[in-house]
Amino acid sequence: MRIAVVAPSCTLHRDAADEVAAIVAARGDAELVVHPQCFASTGHFAGPDIQRLAALREAMADPSIDAIWFARGGYGSNRIAEAAALDLPDAARAKHYLGYSDAGFLLAAFDRAGLSVAHGPMVQDVLRSGGRDAVDRALNWLVRRDAAALEPGLDRTKRALAFNLTVLSSLLGTALEPDFSDTDLLIEDVAEHEYRIDRAMFHITQSAAVRRCAAIRMGRMSDIPENEPGFGSDAEAIVRDWCARSGIAFGGPADIGHDSANRVVPFDPERD
Amino acid sequence: MRIAVVAPSCTLHRDAADEVAAIVAARGDAELVVHPQCFASTGHFAGPDIQRLAALREAMADPSIDAIWFARGGYGSNRIAEAAALDLPDAARAKHYLGYSDAGFLLAAFDRAGLSVAHGPMVQDVLRSGGRDAVDRALNWLVRRDAAALEPGLDRTKRALAFNLTVLSSLLGTALEPDFSDTDLLIEDVAEHEYRIDRAMFHITQSAAVRRCAAIRMGRMSDIPENEPGFGSDAEAIVRDWCARSGIAFGGPADIGHDSANRVVPFDPERD
Repeated sequence: MRIAVVAPSCTLHRDAADEVAAIVAARGDAELVVHPQCFASTGHFAGPDIQRLAALREAMADPSIDAIWFARGGYGSNRIAEAAALDLPDAARAKHYLGYSDAGFLLAAFDRAGLSVAHGPMVQDVLRSGGRDAVDRALNWLVRRDAAALEPGLDRTKRALAFNLTVLSSLLGTALEPDFSDTDLLIEDVAEHEYRIDRAMFHITQSAAVRRCAAIRMGRMSDIPENEPGFGSDAEAIVRDWCARSGIAFGGPADIGHDSANRVVPFDPERD
Repeated sequence: MRIAVVAPSCTLHRDAADEVAAIVAARGDAELVVHPQCFASTGHFAGPDIQRLAALREAMADPSIDAIWFARGGYGSNRIAEAAALDLPDAARAKHYLGYSDAGFLLAAFDRAGLSVAHGPMVQDVLRSGGRDAVDRALNWLVRRDAAALEPGLDRTKRALAFNLTVLSSLLGTALEPDFSDTDLLIEDVAEHEYRIDRAMFHITQSAAVRRCAAIRMGRMSDIPENEPGFGSDAEAIVRDWCARSGIAFGGPADIGHDSANRVVPFDPERD
């Protein structure tokens, strides 16, 4: 099993790469190929768009690579997502793709293109408290499709979707928008004020496309900055409220989020 | 000329109301009716949704009121915008509506409903440096349709749209989405990081609906928080880049923004 790491958004921390390489070596069940582009740095990004796109496309086209594991989030994969999914070589179709947060733009683009994508931990998550668990979970999924890595509420007879809420809000109406029909839609977010969570929930639940989903399940909304004055409602109440207003079923909690407990959500079980 | 002030988003500062009342009294060309709801406070909002909606609908239905002037922005008018535009009484159709920022959700809803709306200064802008100018400009527009109040680049033979960029991004795909066809679309924003401006520009320019606009004109993007590391591009370059990528004409600067120089942009000259 050869796993390529590329950074379509922001620069990977060198120590995260080293720690994960050591974990993979110790496990002995996979080979990690960290693309040098992961350490490029141009302004906000891990290199300019053309470099990030080229590294990703290179890994996608490489028949010796079995899976592409996104290095980390941040911001920027939307700038290359549509191009990354065009004119796919066969080798790209034979791979699995794993990431979350800003990488959700790529999950959406690649899922639309028929590829096997999953929402789950990334390389830089090793730096989180308990991050080793996240990395092992990701590897257990990529290497041996370990069912224990999966988000426990998934109905494995149908498609699911999982996104960072703000990323989801930012791709509605674009060429990346998924087909939500009859899917469980899992959302999570980090470091957004409650008024921003409320606005994003307004946005996604007022979308006719999103309303075709079977239910919205709520992952963790962590590191919410203080609202001044207090917002008057918490994240779960906000999500429940917009589900109720829009006639979308609230499917309860989901075990995903910006933390080391983040479980894996494959979008399409038929592509596992 | 009777002008009602309501607060569909956040609580109006009492001293702003007092200052503007004194300005209106000194001018002697209008009567200001500040609804007590403006000073209500429930969590983040100027009262719960039902109270904000009721105050707005009351003013809309009052035939003695000629114009509704939104008190301020913040966040929250999206929570009542769709309901506010339903089953409009005739008195609501005979009025003009003025505001911007979060009030853009209401501008969109009311414009869709055929009402006369304009993007321009609000009551609480009096507290800004030079805020008296903003208030006089708003009143000159509301009371006597003073052409000097208008954004100077407007083509008054056709429709225009003006929005806070983040608000616009949050209403795409909802029932509030305007018809962008052949309009000049003016955008402004405040206190958003460059990566958020970039993401919002991605979102709006990848919308097939927005791509029907004639051009995007860029108002001020103010109080941009520091990016760490530097983003690598500034707001104007970001806007130009996404216009170029998406085939939307960049129409140059627009004299709007979260400041006292903010000019008035009526959406439909035929409804003036």
